[in-house]
Amino acid sequence: VNTIVLAERPEGALEEAHFSTVDVPAPSSPGPGEVLCRTVLLSIDPANRAWMRQATYRPRLDAGQPMEGFVLAEVVAQNGTGVIPGAVVGCTAPWQEYFVAPAQAVRPIRRRGPLERHLSVLGFSGLTAYVGLLEVGALEAGETVLVSAAGGSVGHLVGQIARLKGARVIGISGSDDKNAMLEADLGFHATVNHRSPRFAAELRSACGDGVDVYFDNVGGPVLSAALEQMRTHGRVVCCGAVSQYDAPRATPGPAGVPTILVTKRLRMQGFLLQDHSKSWSAALEELGRWVGEGRIRALEDVRVGLESAPTALVDVLAGRNVGKVMVRVGSDPAGGIGGARRDR
Amino acid sequence: VNTIVLAERPEGALEEAHFSTVDVPAPSSPGPGEVLCRTVLLSIDPANRAWMRQATYRPRLDAGQPMEGFVLAEVVAQNGTGVIPGAVVGCTAPWQEYFVAPAQAVRPIRRRGPLERHLSVLGFSGLTAYVGLLEVGALEAGETVLVSAAGGSVGHLVGQIARLKGARVIGISGSDDKNAMLEADLGFHATVNHRSPRFAAELRSACGDGVDVYFDNVGGPVLSAALEQMRTHGRVVCCGAVSQYDAPRATPGPAGVPTILVTKRLRMQGFLLQDHSKSWSAALEELGRWVGEGRIRALEDVRVGLESAPTALVDVLAGRNVGKVMVRVGSDPAGGIGGARRDR
Repeated sequence: VNTIVLAERPEGALEEAHFSTVDVPAPSSPGPGEVLCRTVLLSIDPANRAWMRQATYRPRLDAGQPMEGFVLAEVVAQNGTGVIPGAVVGCTAPWQEYFVAPAQAVRPIRRRGPLERHLSVLGFSGLTAYVGLLEVGALEAGETVLVSAAGGSVGHLVGQIARLKGARVIGISGSDDKNAMLEADLGFHATVNHRSPRFAAELRSACGDGVDVYFDNVGGPVLSAALEQMRTHGRVVCCGAVSQYDAPRATPGPAGVPTILVTKRLRMQGFLLQDHSKSWSAALEELGRWVGEGRIRALEDVRVGLESAPTALVDVLAGRNVGKVMVRVGSDPAGGIGGARRDR
Repeated sequence: VNTIVLAERPEGALEEAHFSTVDVPAPSSPGPGEVLCRTVLLSIDPANRAWMRQATYRPRLDAGQPMEGFVLAEVVAQNGTGVIPGAVVGCTAPWQEYFVAPAQAVRPIRRRGPLERHLSVLGFSGLTAYVGLLEVGALEAGETVLVSAAGGSVGHLVGQIARLKGARVIGISGSDDKNAMLEADLGFHATVNHRSPRFAAELRSACGDGVDVYFDNVGGPVLSAALEQMRTHGRVVCCGAVSQYDAPRATPGPAGVPTILVTKRLRMQGFLLQDHSKSWSAALEELGRWVGEGRIRALEDVRVGLESAPTALVDVLAGRNVGKVMVRVGSDPAGGIGGARRDR
């Protein structure tokens, strides 16, 4: 079977040439306590690029190692684990069509509708937006929310959740087309293009009286500009720093830190979704209700075929995506794209 | 009477030459609702320098304006205010021997011992240390605390409060002498000199398993170095940025922001004491008890005479101080330095 390997660690921008495809023996039958899985959907995340830079919450991804990501997969065989073949599970796995994993590393998916949804609004993207905005950001109705990478996997959901919770929502993206769509289709109240030569002035004008919660997906100069717009006692939710992942070296931090944090009494807080697992089921319930009522819309950018994964990741880092990017590697066990249920 | 004026706004380091002394008419008798005060002690604070840079929580101090600071003063006359002449009050006032203020701008001091104490451990320095460490930093027993400007007005109290609350305490200052004193006299468990050529390595070694609460008084490169030593879920308490106040321009922020905040799930929070006034009386009670029991020691650096105020502020910014710097402008109404009570 094919596996995609990180052939070379990028120093600057990630390119397709940093990957290579290798034909490896199909995984053998699972050992005791293991499951054999068939990859259905591969999630493409900016964090995949961050893994190549340095050890974070996981060891660094080094040259010669199989590339990894979060996948939804069908269990096709197991060995004394209690996992039922045919079950759909989520786990971190190599970019590969079949893989073997310890049973305790896979998490069963309680399926609601198309499987794609479980990588977007009903998956980590939706949970990250929900927990980050409401728990870390402690948003209250009537406040103003600013979100960067607003057309991205998490950002477009942050904006919609904020609106549903009674906030005014301003989005930042690098594309006028994305911004027009965010306002017309997803209910953002205002948007700003960070590539505009008048970005600082346009941001100030869009933010009006200032920002209570800034949900930061990008870091870098956009974070610096956003800090200037914060109101007293505002919260900056640090979710990621996609502007930094392709940078050859760590760029200087925002000039306002720490002085502006003191004078405006700001709280700036980083978070990882895994620390908030006790909130997941309540979050999924509310997100699922909004999806069912058509009040929240998941943007999904689905590429097809394992071989498209490197380009998909390069595109995510360059902002050439709308919403959650994923790669369909194999067919849906419930039958067909769209996820209509099949009796089993 | 003499008043000290900010003759010129400094672009870089503050110097004595930026001030001038002007002889102005003695303040007239207080108008309705006003009090006439005689300055006893003038507090010298890094924030005084920050006021010259830009509007913060108060308007910018501009050239030609009287220099201002927090003072303890004796009310010598009043006009329909209910304030009793002879009372000692605290307020922000010009650097001047006598001044008139609206009665609602002055706060009576409930005196416990020498008046100096009410500018150090039982004043804003002690409250800032207490509230910042325990409320903003949410310190728990058994954790490790790192504090910068550890020999300064707030820092030396942060270290002692942390120790009294069961934490391991590491101090950073710019002087080996100060560090030796912090360890020998105030119970700091370890200290590091940020001027050492091996600062990063020495800090790493002193911090061992890492830091749970970093109380930052300085910003700049020391903040960057401290961020590297934080443990997962650590808190960075942003109290001030004394390294920045004399800088001609805002220097770049710490390179780890925001990435390190995400991977380590750090919370970085700025605060001002005035937002925590509901905690003051409980804090003063515990601080007062520790003082009475001899378990906490206030370092006070008392200069004499209004004319010594400019040098005192320049010294604070350069770290040429130990503990809380203040200027004795007039005699203590309770009689004599040391504050022995006098029957009135």
